[in-house]
Amino acid sequence: MIKRYVFGTPLETDAVLNKPAACRDKPPYLGKCENALIYKMDEEDIVYGLGENVRGMNKRGWIYESNCTDDPVHLEETKSLYGAHNFILVSGEKQFGLFLDTPGKVVFDIGYTNSSQLKITLEDGDYELYIIDGGTPDDIITWFRELIGPSYLPPKWAFGFGQSRWSYASSKEVRQVAARYRENHIPLDSIYLDIDYMERYKDFTIDREAFPDFEQLVEDMKQQGIHLIPIIDGGVKIEDGYDVYEEGVKNGFFCKDEDGDDFVVGVWPGKCHFPDMLDEKARAWFGDKYKFLLDKGIEGFWNDMNEPAIFYSEKRLKKVFEKLEEYRKMNLDVNTFFEFQDLVSTISKNPEDYRSFYHTYKGKRIRHDKVHNLFGYFMTRSAGEAFERLEPDKRILMFSRASYIGMHRYGGIWTGDNKSWWSHILLNLKMMPSLNMCGFLYSGADIGGFGADATQDLVLRWMALGIFMPLMRDHSARGTRRQEAYAFEDIEAFRGIIGLRYRLLPYLYSEFMKAALKNGMYARPLGFVWPEDRIARQVEDQLLIGESIMIAPVYEQNAVGRTVYLPEEMKFLRFHGQEVTEQSVLPAGHHFLEIPLEEVVLFIRKGCLLPLASGGENVEQVDWNQLKLYGFAEKGDSYELYDDDGVSPHVILEENLRRIVLK
Amino acid sequence: MIKRYVFGTPLETDAVLNKPAACRDKPPYLGKCENALIYKMDEEDIVYGLGENVRGMNKRGWIYESNCTDDPVHLEETKSLYGAHNFILVSGEKQFGLFLDTPGKVVFDIGYTNSSQLKITLEDGDYELYIIDGGTPDDIITWFRELIGPSYLPPKWAFGFGQSRWSYASSKEVRQVAARYRENHIPLDSIYLDIDYMERYKDFTIDREAFPDFEQLVEDMKQQGIHLIPIIDGGVKIEDGYDVYEEGVKNGFFCKDEDGDDFVVGVWPGKCHFPDMLDEKARAWFGDKYKFLLDKGIEGFWNDMNEPAIFYSEKRLKKVFEKLEEYRKMNLDVNTFFEFQDLVSTISKNPEDYRSFYHTYKGKRIRHDKVHNLFGYFMTRSAGEAFERLEPDKRILMFSRASYIGMHRYGGIWTGDNKSWWSHILLNLKMMPSLNMCGFLYSGADIGGFGADATQDLVLRWMALGIFMPLMRDHSARGTRRQEAYAFEDIEAFRGIIGLRYRLLPYLYSEFMKAALKNGMYARPLGFVWPEDRIARQVEDQLLIGESIMIAPVYEQNAVGRTVYLPEEMKFLRFHGQEVTEQSVLPAGHHFLEIPLEEVVLFIRKGCLLPLASGGENVEQVDWNQLKLYGFAEKGDSYELYDDDGVSPHVILEENLRRIVLK
Repeated sequence: MIKRYVFGTPLETDAVLNKPAACRDKPPYLGKCENALIYKMDEEDIVYGLGENVRGMNKRGWIYESNCTDDPVHLEETKSLYGAHNFILVSGEKQFGLFLDTPGKVVFDIGYTNSSQLKITLEDGDYELYIIDGGTPDDIITWFRELIGPSYLPPKWAFGFGQSRWSYASSKEVRQVAARYRENHIPLDSIYLDIDYMERYKDFTIDREAFPDFEQLVEDMKQQGIHLIPIIDGGVKIEDGYDVYEEGVKNGFFCKDEDGDDFVVGVWPGKCHFPDMLDEKARAWFGDKYKFLLDKGIEGFWNDMNEPAIFYSEKRLKKVFEKLEEYRKMNLDVNTFFEFQDLVSTISKNPEDYRSFYHTYKGKRIRHDKVHNLFGYFMTRSAGEAFERLEPDKRILMFSRASYIGMHRYGGIWTGDNKSWWSHILLNLKMMPSLNMCGFLYSGADIGGFGADATQDLVLRWMALGIFMPLMRDHSARGTRRQEAYAFEDIEAFRGIIGLRYRLLPYLYSEFMKAALKNGMYARPLGFVWPEDRIARQVEDQLLIGESIMIAPVYEQNAVGRTVYLPEEMKFLRFHGQEVTEQSVLPAGHHFLEIPLEEVVLFIRKGCLLPLASGGENVEQVDWNQLKLYGFAEKGDSYELYDDDGVSPHVILEENLRRIVLK
Repeated sequence: MIKRYVFGTPLETDAVLNKPAACRDKPPYLGKCENALIYKMDEEDIVYGLGENVRGMNKRGWIYESNCTDDPVHLEETKSLYGAHNFILVSGEKQFGLFLDTPGKVVFDIGYTNSSQLKITLEDGDYELYIIDGGTPDDIITWFRELIGPSYLPPKWAFGFGQSRWSYASSKEVRQVAARYRENHIPLDSIYLDIDYMERYKDFTIDREAFPDFEQLVEDMKQQGIHLIPIIDGGVKIEDGYDVYEEGVKNGFFCKDEDGDDFVVGVWPGKCHFPDMLDEKARAWFGDKYKFLLDKGIEGFWNDMNEPAIFYSEKRLKKVFEKLEEYRKMNLDVNTFFEFQDLVSTISKNPEDYRSFYHTYKGKRIRHDKVHNLFGYFMTRSAGEAFERLEPDKRILMFSRASYIGMHRYGGIWTGDNKSWWSHILLNLKMMPSLNMCGFLYSGADIGGFGADATQDLVLRWMALGIFMPLMRDHSARGTRRQEAYAFEDIEAFRGIIGLRYRLLPYLYSEFMKAALKNGMYARPLGFVWPEDRIARQVEDQLLIGESIMIAPVYEQNAVGRTVYLPEEMKFLRFHGQEVTEQSVLPAGHHFLEIPLEEVVLFIRKGCLLPLASGGENVEQVDWNQLKLYGFAEKGDSYELYDDDGVSPHVILEENLRRIVLK
């Protein structure tokens, strides 16, 4: 069912764990034309996949590039986000999965140039191609996931709600955030620390002026059932006396420039070096640095700026200022004026800079652009491998901004710097199944949006989707309007919707762990389940979450409700906050449902059960043994509940399953 | 029904033609708090209006600023586009219209800060406030429109389809575009000339290298039934020997800087002066310049860059380079690096520049920012008044980018530099009724999107909406993918949909002219007609076009169809291209309809008729006397058809109406 093809002499990415022998025949489905692979799409084919990207679950009609990019404006025309996920699934008359294992740039023209042509162009002629077929979409995904190895398992508490902000800048502010949640009885399990907890943005340091009592803060928060989650950045500040910098220089652990000197880039701390995450020794060294925070009681991290982001390189800045001097002397006309503006606006993440530094990878010197898409993956692997050494019996929370398939074994992802836009609620929904296909199960978007200003209705509607996402976090940028759950008028509404997350936890955790341990999907497009239903196949604003339920959030401002499509008869559940206020069986077809801001609706599939806990203000308080069963089921129908200690990384599915039967 | 309130000593904008006497009592509905007006919204209130702006027909949940802005990226978070239209209509338990007549900046916080509060903040304490109430939304609009005077009437040929591009750069290219349309039998009435037809972007010049035979080109195109529509920009190039520049300087017709010298800005031609459009003499002089092109057979224009756009001012550029010199000498850290980038990225349309030049308005010197929102309006007025002098018996096509209420008497607008985004199809739809309310009936968006790259399906879906817009034009930017109707694979589909426009023309022109001459709406939100229907009130993706029909275009990629809401029983018509292929009566409620790319659907209201012509390849070919009647009607039901010579500006509604009765 899985065929592997090798072209040229590809670099090993460690994406695939157990490689089948390479085939010598021509790959099926595809034509080859120079450095491109071509597939002629049927009119009805859906092309799923590509993990973290803009647009629909069906990727037809645009060009995407696998090229990890720090881009804070996610538009319909955006071609690359932070991850590079070269997996697609064609679903139609023919059904097959395709994975291109190559760390360089890949361009997927999916019916953009020619509406019936899928054309994949590889920058590098050395790559491995996997074709997976012979089953349903679910089968193909499972086989692919078996190939790339098991998905990362977060601790159970990481399924609680988290509050973030760039930045909570002091111990005092963190304590205030915690207090506001606790005094308002809005559940919370974690508070995120963005770059300002560090001393001048130096990884593995604490700003002791703002956080003089950091260790005590960690402890006090734990007492309140709240975990602190600090950020770690991809660049290490150049500063004499700073241990990470000095050790890195001494041991040659940083990426080099053309002359063999440590490569200098500007990122948050100012001038930095990049640890060579691809080099085994450097990776082990960088991973061990997380101990600094683990020792302070920290149990989770997020890895950022690891595309890697480059604000400027030293060399480029010098060149720019030389050129600016020329412009200064010129009498600028409109063309030279725009040249001048472009010169300055293209300093950051300039392709030239990505071609000007080097890694040591599996013993060889290799230019960065050839392995660009591995940096974030290997940074997170660095942490993941360290956690296995340092905390062998504990799951540590870890998610990353940049990624490549393979990284899914070491951490989840968040979908980066989105915006407080209504369209980004829907983008959040659409991205989930694509990420799941590529192994990224523990993932989510910044609820309420990172950039731009949020409104109460936007955040409430987004929360009503976010409660179904494994990673449920509210995060926002410096300078934007506050969007914590207590920041708006109707705190009751926030309490209700976030509270519902905690009632859903036994179900959500069960479905997540089953998907992770069985290499299945947590969030599925309707077309996976009803491939013969033309309308179901095109639904881009509903999802199946696990085996029992379908969701259909409202994502339009001022909407009093929305139309929902039911491919089959389902049981409709309405929640006013945490409480079920309506249950009814709806026939297959389209239904318009009024859904006020403070309400959540979901749909239970026939023969399925939904266990609900009674809730709690953090995950620990949720009682897995006091479950109320809702369902569209008859006596004797059952649900397989998963539970474990929430901490151990070594879990066996069967040992933790328990069958609940409707009596 | 209309009350006028005067605060301070407002500047006259000439927006309102017949002012009622000012009231001395306090305005109803509103509270006043310093320089702000406050209204407490009911939960069910819809706030319509604000003309050209992003987001919904219901403007609740965001902050908008009336501040004409050249911004080519129209996002959910955008606060100002090119126009300043200070009219809103509150529709709920209370129903009233509100117009703030002030040429300065106005901020509308419509439930953003506080979800139930509408707060309008005025930069200038001198303004006139109009409150219009006592009727239905349609009544309120009609009374408001009577207040501000009749809408601009374009020639009938301007209801044909137009093809544009930045730019068709030579006579040869224009001839090729025309040939491709004619040989493919895709209807076309006009080709637009963007800035490259001019000699180095100088208004009222012709680039004789690229267009050596301009006059012959105009003539040859006319022979083919195609009008050429050149662009006119807001800035006049500084160049010795250039007549417009020299006359302007000699007569003091340009805006002045603080020292009384002609103000220097950089726009397309490089260094320019702004004609003082607010000064009566300068305005008459500038308007007369259009004669240069009228004399060459030109019958239509579009006015651009008249916010006015400023790429840079001479003074600002000097300051920036001085500051850059400082940065060059510094060792940039990350904060100073971003400062440095910001310095360069904020050169264009810098608020400081708008505070540094002066107009002579009604005999007084006045700083630009105080009257900023009038520039585009008065530029178009300059043309409109000139046309009345130069071509008193002819309607000349005119539409503008920047505008203010009042300008609707002199021209239409296009909605500026949108993008080839699916979301901008819907934005196009949502903006139409808001523009109509403010008097702008002849308007439309760039079909297919101006910026970014289009796909065939996007352009087809957009066309299927665009055929219902008075201004129907395909336009795209330099460097983007070609999106002419013959540029994609399925030319037949484009021929069919554009062809349908020409079959619809008698209806669309009738409804447009009736709306213009009766001060009514051409495109209405469903809430106007079914105010008691909660679902109809919140529909943001359907429109009523005229009295007979409702439209519901598809605006999502890869969608096989869409859900349509019918507030009442309607007759559904499906067109495969130009041909009606299905007719059926649908009951009230939600319906999912499959709508392939090459099809258009519409819905006829009960008791209404839709006359269809047999089509044509330009407007002139459409036979108004050979109409086929479709309808959801009984024998004896009738439709009032409007027709005229399509040219005369002096038309009397009643003289041109003809009743068609179903036999």
